[in-house]
Amino acid sequence: MGLVDEILSGKRLSLARLLTQIENETTAGREALSELYPYTGHAYVIGITGAPGTGKSSLVNSLAYAFRHPDDGKPAPRVGIIAVDPSSPFSGGAILGDRVRMKDLAGDTGVFIRSMATRGSLGGLAATTAGMVEVLDAAGFEIILVETVGAGQSEIDIARLAHTTLVVEAPGLGDDIQAIKAGILEIADILVINKADLPGIEITERALKASLDLAHPTLHLFRIDKTSAAILLEGMQISAPTPTDLWIPPIVKTIATQKTGVAELKQSILEHRRYIEQNGLKHFQEVFRTAYETGVLLEEALLSNWRQDIPGIELQETLHKVYAREISPWEAVQRFMHARTARS
Amino acid sequence: MGLVDEILSGKRLSLARLLTQIENETTAGREALSELYPYTGHAYVIGITGAPGTGKSSLVNSLAYAFRHPDDGKPAPRVGIIAVDPSSPFSGGAILGDRVRMKDLAGDTGVFIRSMATRGSLGGLAATTAGMVEVLDAAGFEIILVETVGAGQSEIDIARLAHTTLVVEAPGLGDDIQAIKAGILEIADILVINKADLPGIEITERALKASLDLAHPTLHLFRIDKTSAAILLEGMQISAPTPTDLWIPPIVKTIATQKTGVAELKQSILEHRRYIEQNGLKHFQEVFRTAYETGVLLEEALLSNWRQDIPGIELQETLHKVYAREISPWEAVQRFMHARTARS
Repeated sequence: MGLVDEILSGKRLSLARLLTQIENETTAGREALSELYPYTGHAYVIGITGAPGTGKSSLVNSLAYAFRHPDDGKPAPRVGIIAVDPSSPFSGGAILGDRVRMKDLAGDTGVFIRSMATRGSLGGLAATTAGMVEVLDAAGFEIILVETVGAGQSEIDIARLAHTTLVVEAPGLGDDIQAIKAGILEIADILVINKADLPGIEITERALKASLDLAHPTLHLFRIDKTSAAILLEGMQISAPTPTDLWIPPIVKTIATQKTGVAELKQSILEHRRYIEQNGLKHFQEVFRTAYETGVLLEEALLSNWRQDIPGIELQETLHKVYAREISPWEAVQRFMHARTARS
Repeated sequence: MGLVDEILSGKRLSLARLLTQIENETTAGREALSELYPYTGHAYVIGITGAPGTGKSSLVNSLAYAFRHPDDGKPAPRVGIIAVDPSSPFSGGAILGDRVRMKDLAGDTGVFIRSMATRGSLGGLAATTAGMVEVLDAAGFEIILVETVGAGQSEIDIARLAHTTLVVEAPGLGDDIQAIKAGILEIADILVINKADLPGIEITERALKASLDLAHPTLHLFRIDKTSAAILLEGMQISAPTPTDLWIPPIVKTIATQKTGVAELKQSILEHRRYIEQNGLKHFQEVFRTAYETGVLLEEALLSNWRQDIPGIELQETLHKVYAREISPWEAVQRFMHARTARS
């Protein structure tokens, strides 16, 4: 039995092996994922992001537990967790490693947890995370939680990948972090104030409400400029729908370590799911994701091929001129591009 | 008098105008920068990075003040500050705006402060920041402080741009932030514990010392893989020198708001400057930076040209197949690349 069949029949070891291949961006991994691709499209992807210190990991764990123990008597969905760790771009490894997760989830074969390092290029991470989600999706995980730490670009990528994005806050994290929040708020479908038993909760809640009044919770994620995905979307001649109803991100208070508020949070997620399904947004999310992932992979392929496009001698000569400050880097690039056009 | 001459003769308004053009990545801006490029290479660039909440902005201000008020009777260098703000990739604007800086610096014409949004692509930010540093360099600013907030890729770019990189810590920022620190430590030439009057300073200092014992403070920054810069460096046939002395990042304690420890910090920076100059590292930093900036600009140029390379009809058909899950995004990219080769 090949790797793909093993994954489709539920072998966890094979699943872990393929995820490693995807993370290492191997061709074998990409080929296996291509075989699995027709089996994808059934998972609901939830992104969880926020500043450091907000207790995201605990929240992810308690949310996974809540999905695994439904109170309506229905069968529990299988839950996959991808934790994108803050880590060195040099050492490559995930600092938190195979983190010790809440005991509640230990031994539950309906849960699969994977930590992953934020290595390499920006596009690399986006494509790798998308690939991992697709593998878990094909392997039959119906709920996939993607957790990312940090302030910057990675949470935007996660939000573009997710059907519902949670932004986690916590009381008393200081002014600098407040500034970061402002940027991150735009991607929130649901705002979570975790550690709701800490002092300062009222201030945080008030600040978030004030920010929400200013925000326009529409289709921010789908506004992309100057990327290949934007051009690909244009090529597909599909544009974002205009939802009849407006979704105002609810603010949900939780104490994840005590599971307080987690049932309410799960409820909010299910409501958002209904919202995007009823307003044609889910369909557009899928189209967008297709274009985005393809665009990122295309950029990588084009860049890894560029050396073939530029004559070797010219390269060395031109660079030395830049170093001698005879020409600027930008002028050097103009020369490369000109040589490339002249050659083809 | 043209923009370039105005900048060389010290007109602040023209300087501000060109910086805006660089930030907006206009062709006119890139052309003006190319004209200025021969005048660059005199500035010493100091990068300041660290987690949110460490008081980086205050530290940058007090450091600028210290450089502007030397205690050895020598003329003060002109100081440029570039503050890379956390901001939304969607709204585009710097949230902190033209931030209110310390009163000490107000009215000092030997100081130029510029805030900039972290917008667009990763490469975009690196190229834009490098361009801004070059403009300030050509305009005669001898010390350039580049401040960046956040955990991710941006501080790596800053470190690659800077001659000396400061990583700022502060006591009591919690566990999540500790994890981020671990990654960021590798880029530190000097470690600063700011807010040194806060409780927990001993713990922070002990943790940093322990991390330093594990770290190998060599040439981490120059280890780049799979990027155009790496290929360009190879093309220049220049490799990193092996320094005779080892630089162990010192730990400097400061209370920036009271200017405590800032003189010592300035001293450490000057020592590091001597170290890199005496060990051939400064020369290599310049070569590396040349290759890195050219590589980033080249990648952008190649990507902005890609649509010419791929036939339009095929694009649309293939993408719809991906959306229908008939083929995977990776397979789509293989087809595009094949069509491109067949065409040329």
